[in-house]
Amino acid sequence: MAEPLRLADLGEWGLIERLGAYAPPGQFDDDGALISPDADRSLVVTTDLLVEGIHFSDATMGPEDLGWRAAAANLSDLAAMGCHQVVGLTVGLAAPDETPWAWVEGVYGGLSQALASYGGDLLGGDCSGGQQRLLAITALGRLDPGRPIRRRDGRPGDLLVSSGAHGLSRLGLALLQGELEPLASLELQERAIAAHRRPRPRLDGLAALVASQPPGEPWRVAGMDSSDGLGQAVAAIAGRSHCQAVLERSRLPLADAMADLPQAEQWCLGGGEDFELVLALDPVWAEALVEQLEGAQVIGRLDPPQPSGPRGWGTAPLRWADGTALAPADAAGFSHFH
Amino acid sequence: MAEPLRLADLGEWGLIERLGAYAPPGQFDDDGALISPDADRSLVVTTDLLVEGIHFSDATMGPEDLGWRAAAANLSDLAAMGCHQVVGLTVGLAAPDETPWAWVEGVYGGLSQALASYGGDLLGGDCSGGQQRLLAITALGRLDPGRPIRRRDGRPGDLLVSSGAHGLSRLGLALLQGELEPLASLELQERAIAAHRRPRPRLDGLAALVASQPPGEPWRVAGMDSSDGLGQAVAAIAGRSHCQAVLERSRLPLADAMADLPQAEQWCLGGGEDFELVLALDPVWAEALVEQLEGAQVIGRLDPPQPSGPRGWGTAPLRWADGTALAPADAAGFSHFH
Repeated sequence: MAEPLRLADLGEWGLIERLGAYAPPGQFDDDGALISPDADRSLVVTTDLLVEGIHFSDATMGPEDLGWRAAAANLSDLAAMGCHQVVGLTVGLAAPDETPWAWVEGVYGGLSQALASYGGDLLGGDCSGGQQRLLAITALGRLDPGRPIRRRDGRPGDLLVSSGAHGLSRLGLALLQGELEPLASLELQERAIAAHRRPRPRLDGLAALVASQPPGEPWRVAGMDSSDGLGQAVAAIAGRSHCQAVLERSRLPLADAMADLPQAEQWCLGGGEDFELVLALDPVWAEALVEQLEGAQVIGRLDPPQPSGPRGWGTAPLRWADGTALAPADAAGFSHFH
Repeated sequence: MAEPLRLADLGEWGLIERLGAYAPPGQFDDDGALISPDADRSLVVTTDLLVEGIHFSDATMGPEDLGWRAAAANLSDLAAMGCHQVVGLTVGLAAPDETPWAWVEGVYGGLSQALASYGGDLLGGDCSGGQQRLLAITALGRLDPGRPIRRRDGRPGDLLVSSGAHGLSRLGLALLQGELEPLASLELQERAIAAHRRPRPRLDGLAALVASQPPGEPWRVAGMDSSDGLGQAVAAIAGRSHCQAVLERSRLPLADAMADLPQAEQWCLGGGEDFELVLALDPVWAEALVEQLEGAQVIGRLDPPQPSGPRGWGTAPLRWADGTALAPADAAGFSHFH
């Protein structure tokens, strides 16, 4: 008899694909979800889990940073849907009985700081015991229904734009975990650790998109955030848009000071948790956006799909503009089931 | 030096009280939350955690029942706020890598059955590894902003109404855990197990309240659901309404066939997870509601507060109509931190 299928066999994308079958068509396509068509089309909801030992540890992050990060990860999903307003969030907290109140207080303090910075209220939640500390955050936001950002809206010929540098968060994690010796540049070291502990959701992206929209051009913006890695974001946009993605190696969005590190390229593509926006836009709009949004740059383009290529639910193959394929390990990003 | 305060020292109510300080005033008062005043006042959001070993176990419940129950618990919170429409829910799933897909499929199958019965869509979610299986559900619903149900809206003189029998779910759990010998009545045994595995959220409560509202009387309905126990629900309504609660021992809402069990009274008050509505209403309205809603009955009343009584955030002392105090253990209900 065959072994029963386990979550580890499916992997995260495989699991999400199967779970999407329980929801209305297209409901699981993006970072967040528009609620049902007969209700208010402007409301977006998104849920994220943060589990001790997987998404956070006391060794790399205090409770206030964790709270900030938990909020920021969800607000980044709202930004990636095109939200202009954060309504608020609910927090499910599981923690062992022995957990100090001071830790919980720190987490909620960090959450509140993020809400004070980006808007929205703590709306509610639930608490439970548990073997492992865990935060389950659901965020609500509003968008203009005429201006959504969706993964599936890319087309061949679009340019791929990154809203900022990638790899810094992974560098910060490496420094905090002692994977790397302290850097010669104290300034880079501090920037990397801050990028890991206090990521900034790009809620400024929508206004820049609106300001740079070419006159007369209809709204069509494909995108998602890079929480699970730049490579995975590009692959998901390309896959959902039935395109293939071509990246320019010389235009990878590395933080300047990081370019000399041997891991720079790998962490830029697969480090994850940079919480930038990755967008696919008509070339004229893409170039205008790069002028408008500081730190944004063109990193590649969408091409027509390979006729015989794999047609995954979540991903499409990536290649460099010189024709070589990216090694899957480089672009692998973060997977929750190994 | 004093030991640091732990969650076990605070208890669940103490923890929620402290966490409420991070939210707008009144935001944590009820089973669900209305979103911020400048946004849509008709939207309600509620979050529940279900943790393996605390809220469920393979020994008492298969995955389909768990999925149904997880959805029902959240829909019950929407019912307890006065929602007339279920918009849908998001699901955060944490599970070890070795978890069989079939288990996850069962859970989502049960969730879908509940949504098919009561309305609403699976809106989205997140998945993660973890040591312990856990579901974090956030449900969204809509109410008429002129017809909310809130814990704090009770007044001295109101009658307390229960929408149905209590204790059956706890009896079902006792049978499933082998705490009790199989019952002589197979019919009661099956009803109790069904009550535990397939609770029915009282989304029919609102229509009965509307139909029974006395002409000319303004809307004022205090209430919550009895997920954590009838006694705890009554105590919370009384506490938030600055009243004390008086229960009539002869009118406890026991399931008929259960009245002979020695545990009947204790499980009726403290068993939990019956997911009925507990309401406080003007007497004329209360009597009309009992006519309208099958299974509903008056169980006691709200009295003015004891001048020197404790003023807890979550609870008020309960007493019997003959003047004796309820033993706290009887009404203790379910607490998530011990």
